[in-house]
Amino acid sequence: MDMKKKIVVKFGGTSVADPDRIEKAAEKVIAEVKRGNRVAVVVSAMSGVTNQLLHYCAQIQSGLDSSDYDVVVASGEQVTAGLMALALQKRGFKSQSYLGWQVPIISNTQHGRARIQDIRPEILNVAMANDIIPVIAGFQGVTEGGRVTTLGRGGSDTTAVAIAAALRADRCDIYTDVDGVYTCDPRIVAQARKLPCVTYEEMLEMAALGAKVLHPRSVELAMGWGVPLQVLSSFGPQIGSDLPGTQVVREESVMEKQIVNGVTYTRNEAKITLVSVPDKPGIAASIFGPLGDAGVNVDMIVQNISSDGKTTDMTFTVPRGDADLTKSVLQRAPDLYVGYVGDIRVDLHVSKVSVVGIGMTSHSGVAKTMFSTLAQEGINIRAITTSEIKISVLIDEDYTELAVRALHTAFGLDKERP
Amino acid sequence: MDMKKKIVVKFGGTSVADPDRIEKAAEKVIAEVKRGNRVAVVVSAMSGVTNQLLHYCAQIQSGLDSSDYDVVVASGEQVTAGLMALALQKRGFKSQSYLGWQVPIISNTQHGRARIQDIRPEILNVAMANDIIPVIAGFQGVTEGGRVTTLGRGGSDTTAVAIAAALRADRCDIYTDVDGVYTCDPRIVAQARKLPCVTYEEMLEMAALGAKVLHPRSVELAMGWGVPLQVLSSFGPQIGSDLPGTQVVREESVMEKQIVNGVTYTRNEAKITLVSVPDKPGIAASIFGPLGDAGVNVDMIVQNISSDGKTTDMTFTVPRGDADLTKSVLQRAPDLYVGYVGDIRVDLHVSKVSVVGIGMTSHSGVAKTMFSTLAQEGINIRAITTSEIKISVLIDEDYTELAVRALHTAFGLDKERP
Repeated sequence: MDMKKKIVVKFGGTSVADPDRIEKAAEKVIAEVKRGNRVAVVVSAMSGVTNQLLHYCAQIQSGLDSSDYDVVVASGEQVTAGLMALALQKRGFKSQSYLGWQVPIISNTQHGRARIQDIRPEILNVAMANDIIPVIAGFQGVTEGGRVTTLGRGGSDTTAVAIAAALRADRCDIYTDVDGVYTCDPRIVAQARKLPCVTYEEMLEMAALGAKVLHPRSVELAMGWGVPLQVLSSFGPQIGSDLPGTQVVREESVMEKQIVNGVTYTRNEAKITLVSVPDKPGIAASIFGPLGDAGVNVDMIVQNISSDGKTTDMTFTVPRGDADLTKSVLQRAPDLYVGYVGDIRVDLHVSKVSVVGIGMTSHSGVAKTMFSTLAQEGINIRAITTSEIKISVLIDEDYTELAVRALHTAFGLDKERP
Repeated sequence: MDMKKKIVVKFGGTSVADPDRIEKAAEKVIAEVKRGNRVAVVVSAMSGVTNQLLHYCAQIQSGLDSSDYDVVVASGEQVTAGLMALALQKRGFKSQSYLGWQVPIISNTQHGRARIQDIRPEILNVAMANDIIPVIAGFQGVTEGGRVTTLGRGGSDTTAVAIAAALRADRCDIYTDVDGVYTCDPRIVAQARKLPCVTYEEMLEMAALGAKVLHPRSVELAMGWGVPLQVLSSFGPQIGSDLPGTQVVREESVMEKQIVNGVTYTRNEAKITLVSVPDKPGIAASIFGPLGDAGVNVDMIVQNISSDGKTTDMTFTVPRGDADLTKSVLQRAPDLYVGYVGDIRVDLHVSKVSVVGIGMTSHSGVAKTMFSTLAQEGINIRAITTSEIKISVLIDEDYTELAVRALHTAFGLDKERP
């Protein structure tokens, strides 16, 4: 019985941006091995490489559904995997790179955005049992038919979590260019604190809301498989077992729950309002069905019954770049426009500010604190949505920083002054 | 019964240097398809890419025996294969890329310089029978154990010839940055003519002697399997079936044999002379054994019995960069130096000039013409070696151009004046 812990460590693009950084990342892997752990490594492409490869593809054609597109793009992670294995070998450790097809990491056939279906970890387990450090190319898989796939956005984080799940690893460490998850964007709130611990659910809300530390897809997978995650900086002196980053864990593992753990924001929003829509069954489907078909990702949806009881105003947000598409889709939506003579109003100058915290499920008054804080600053709320662990408001974009800072202070998130 | 001809076309690095050139190469493939042929494509890495990848590896470590080195380097051809398939698809043709492991191209386990052992062409045959143009990444293979290999120097040409042999192709067209094989280097002899046809043997001699059109390894393979080769320019308007390049064929296929088909030269030579070596059995082995062990590639070897009958002078050439290594190896060679008190002389200022021609086997007087031509120019010959289809002389480097031009004229190779 092997009593050593299994740790999966993943390095993102900036952490392996050049051979020099790859060597520094290799040192972190070795430090973890020297602590008596068995380590498997997952790597992204060197930063900039994937963009170069995409640019080549774009020069030839823009379609992304060809399996050959994936053949080109997957080469980026392949290079890093080989170089990382070389860096470990140079330091006297046994190591070997594994591409998606070599593990194999079986995916479906949706090229450019494939989903992992199965990982057969035997070859990795055998390697690790023989003190070989496997280095797995992230972001890529292989179909049952033997074609290379790529996993789309968040693909390398997803590979790391899926490998950790398949290996039943004790932990999955994600090395990135930030040193953890913060209560807020430190560029906006100087008083932002690093959180020692967040739940999967909080991380999901924060990631979806713009805290670009972990892709939601990888967090969902970790939550589903119960993989303990840890976010760490590639550039600090610490290594995974020093536990200096942010741990992402099950709710039960959080001993003392903060009411609110973070304030997040996104600027890239457009508010769409359909004025005086007929208030009848099926109206929501007639709006959001065509938008879904057109690939528009609708976020906040707010519906108010208007005073006459026959019509309603429907407000929702979309990514700002999709505002024109949204308008044209709605103007052509047949079910919507039977008898509809209302107006479509587009506001491109809004941002969304949210407070997130698993603790708010058991504490009342979070909404009240949020709304009164914004009122004291004279900030008008355009729309509100709530979930179990999140309250989001849509406000005028100009007030974003003001709102974020005021909420950060109001919820006691500012770090203690020394 | 499929009556269509099968053609393998291979594009070298400068022919696929960027997406724009890849698209131009795709046009040549399509022209060949439109003539009613079935085409399989083999591609090199975009020029410069392999050097970049090698540089990354060198930054981390210099050893080339790791399988992960091959994982890094093989990515270059992978990118080109994907992009070429995309370029063909964009033009409405069915195409698919194939990496070494996907064909598969089975090699031995000598990473960095693997030899192809077997190609299982079924998947390619099925693709071609279904009007899919397969694009195979050159330079790479896979071991029976599933590790990626690279084939070393001349690897992509070798892939193309091996694929042609496995497919029993009617022809293998090598598109490169020259438009054929010339009677001499056109940079030195303005009157050099493009040869419509050379034999494998001549091509081998010319390639080994510095006419850098095809790597000898690929020519040997083509000769062994009887694959008709054709060398063409990627940058001219012509395509393979226009037959504008140089065909490389069996001797029997050459209707009218030129006596001499080419004059070649290499400057990168050093002449080593061991003066007064004991003339006894085993002496050659005691010299060239240690040199072979040290990886020194010895070329011309000339041995003369000296006047006293007890000692001999031994002269040979090595690549100029290996001259120092050669001297130090010989000074340490134990079997050689038992009782040897002679001198090792190194001349770094020599070049080798050769005339090559299948016709000289049936024509006397080639040697006489060569030596008298050089004598008329006042060029001293330092050493001579001969083979069935080649005569080489070692001369002072300063006379290289003069010798080459004089021989080109003497053997009637100058193109007719218009």
